[in-house]
Amino acid sequence: MIKIGILGYGNLGRGVEAAVKMNSDLELVAVYTRRDPASLKINTEGVEVRPVALLEEGKEEIDVLVICGGSATDLPEMTPKFASLYNVIDSFDTHARIPEHFANVDAAAKKAGKIGIISAGWDPGMFSLNRVYADAVLPCGKAYTFWGKGVSQGHSDAVRRIEGVKDARQYTIPVEAAVDAVRSGSQPELTTRQKHTRLCYVVAEEGADKAAIEKAIVTMPNYFDEYDTTVEFITEEEMKRDHSGLPHGGMVIHSGVTSEGTKHVIEYSLKLDSNPEFTGSVLAACARAAYRMNQEGVCGAKTLFDIAPAYLSAHSADELRAHFL
Amino acid sequence: MIKIGILGYGNLGRGVEAAVKMNSDLELVAVYTRRDPASLKINTEGVEVRPVALLEEGKEEIDVLVICGGSATDLPEMTPKFASLYNVIDSFDTHARIPEHFANVDAAAKKAGKIGIISAGWDPGMFSLNRVYADAVLPCGKAYTFWGKGVSQGHSDAVRRIEGVKDARQYTIPVEAAVDAVRSGSQPELTTRQKHTRLCYVVAEEGADKAAIEKAIVTMPNYFDEYDTTVEFITEEEMKRDHSGLPHGGMVIHSGVTSEGTKHVIEYSLKLDSNPEFTGSVLAACARAAYRMNQEGVCGAKTLFDIAPAYLSAHSADELRAHFL
Repeated sequence: MIKIGILGYGNLGRGVEAAVKMNSDLELVAVYTRRDPASLKINTEGVEVRPVALLEEGKEEIDVLVICGGSATDLPEMTPKFASLYNVIDSFDTHARIPEHFANVDAAAKKAGKIGIISAGWDPGMFSLNRVYADAVLPCGKAYTFWGKGVSQGHSDAVRRIEGVKDARQYTIPVEAAVDAVRSGSQPELTTRQKHTRLCYVVAEEGADKAAIEKAIVTMPNYFDEYDTTVEFITEEEMKRDHSGLPHGGMVIHSGVTSEGTKHVIEYSLKLDSNPEFTGSVLAACARAAYRMNQEGVCGAKTLFDIAPAYLSAHSADELRAHFL
Repeated sequence: MIKIGILGYGNLGRGVEAAVKMNSDLELVAVYTRRDPASLKINTEGVEVRPVALLEEGKEEIDVLVICGGSATDLPEMTPKFASLYNVIDSFDTHARIPEHFANVDAAAKKAGKIGIISAGWDPGMFSLNRVYADAVLPCGKAYTFWGKGVSQGHSDAVRRIEGVKDARQYTIPVEAAVDAVRSGSQPELTTRQKHTRLCYVVAEEGADKAAIEKAIVTMPNYFDEYDTTVEFITEEEMKRDHSGLPHGGMVIHSGVTSEGTKHVIEYSLKLDSNPEFTGSVLAACARAAYRMNQEGVCGAKTLFDIAPAYLSAHSADELRAHFL
């Protein structure tokens, strides 16, 4: 059994917890929290909730620590820190800062003889893998990534911060015509607006100025101004009934040629009922890989690009060749 | 530059040749053939065609030999033989004999300090990878593989052997309703007949008994008897005009749960204008990986399961993290 610790018990921490239960070779040892452990009720019976301070002593009996924090401030600090004590996994997704984060985790992990797998999940993660494989096989080609239909938590939060908004849920939706054009292998040039639309469900405070809310949303820089955005006002009950899940998904479509006029299209797509549970499942598989690679003496920062697929699987190499090849 | 040799110049050999041209770090050094080299006209100027006997001396200046032979008799003999002299790649696809083939190549390659990557291509190959990744992430799930629409060369050959058949082309076609059911995540039980249909275009010899040909096809054991098969008789001109390519493709669809009622669907699909050129492109990427891994001292038999994706890519690890993650 590979002993897993989870640091942070938000949506993603619960997703990792669910994933661990699906894997018979993984065992959840403890959930670590910055909150008062007594205040936390987790979904796994018999598993302790412990204060994060315990981790810092470096004596917790865990094989891999899965760090479920935010990319803005938590992970840049936590992942290098704990990589100097344990094998760690994170889902760092601030693309522009990945090289810096990688270097920090690499230095800490190498010094400690541990592994730190960063930027695991589905994007970055499974989508990244598919971009690399497709480009390696069809280098004279082009990849397109579409996201959705799914809930963007960052965009939902941005709408919630607008005055008069009580609750909000933002769906990112790929534009069908753009997806079809890409699937045809025609390699179109697509603007941001042509690739995705945004759909916001908003519960307004009583007496709020709905026209003002709508205008504040659709003109919001970075988040909405470059997109065609639709705003729909709904009731609290409708929000709860129809939008309480966190579905997501999307696709990576790569088209390329191998000789004049000979086209190929590779598509990888995900339809996810729960973004955090699927992300947690990728982190759990990475925890297995981190443990095994570290047992073989490998250390330092890694991404999914550096992990031979067999390390992620619970099956033996013989089983994989016999049943999956 | 990684120096590539191609052994065998049929459809697949030409596919590898085309792929090498798409990769600026790969260089075709020679094509090796069992035929009279003078009789072979290849598509790359300035590259020599040499007799296979030269390879046997073990002195050819190539980094990787891509062996483009048949799985029935060529590869079981050739791959272990040449793995004792060079890094080699093959596309061995007789599923039941993979463990035996792997063991033979492993012994030869390890003794020589070389790498032998076997069973590369798209199935086995890219489809196998996707079965493993999906199962690792969603172990409580089930994968379905569909092939087509595309030309099955084995089935086309089987039809050609029937008396009165001058030429034939067999298309394997996934059943749309089955694909839709799988995509829904409902994990249906599907029989062979429910998953694929077969469509044969046949040019009959003059005066041949078409009813007898059709009966011989649809009742042929192993090849057709378990499928709904349609036979269409066409002219030689129609065959040449409409069916001279070797398109193929298909998809691996894996659906699984991460908690009660929370479903996810992962789909990987290929639409290929040319089966041998795409297969050749996978072999070319594997040649790069074989060379690099061997430079690091790795030897023995490998499959795509054992290869970290970064080894397949022409880009550096830094570039991959900055642009693909």
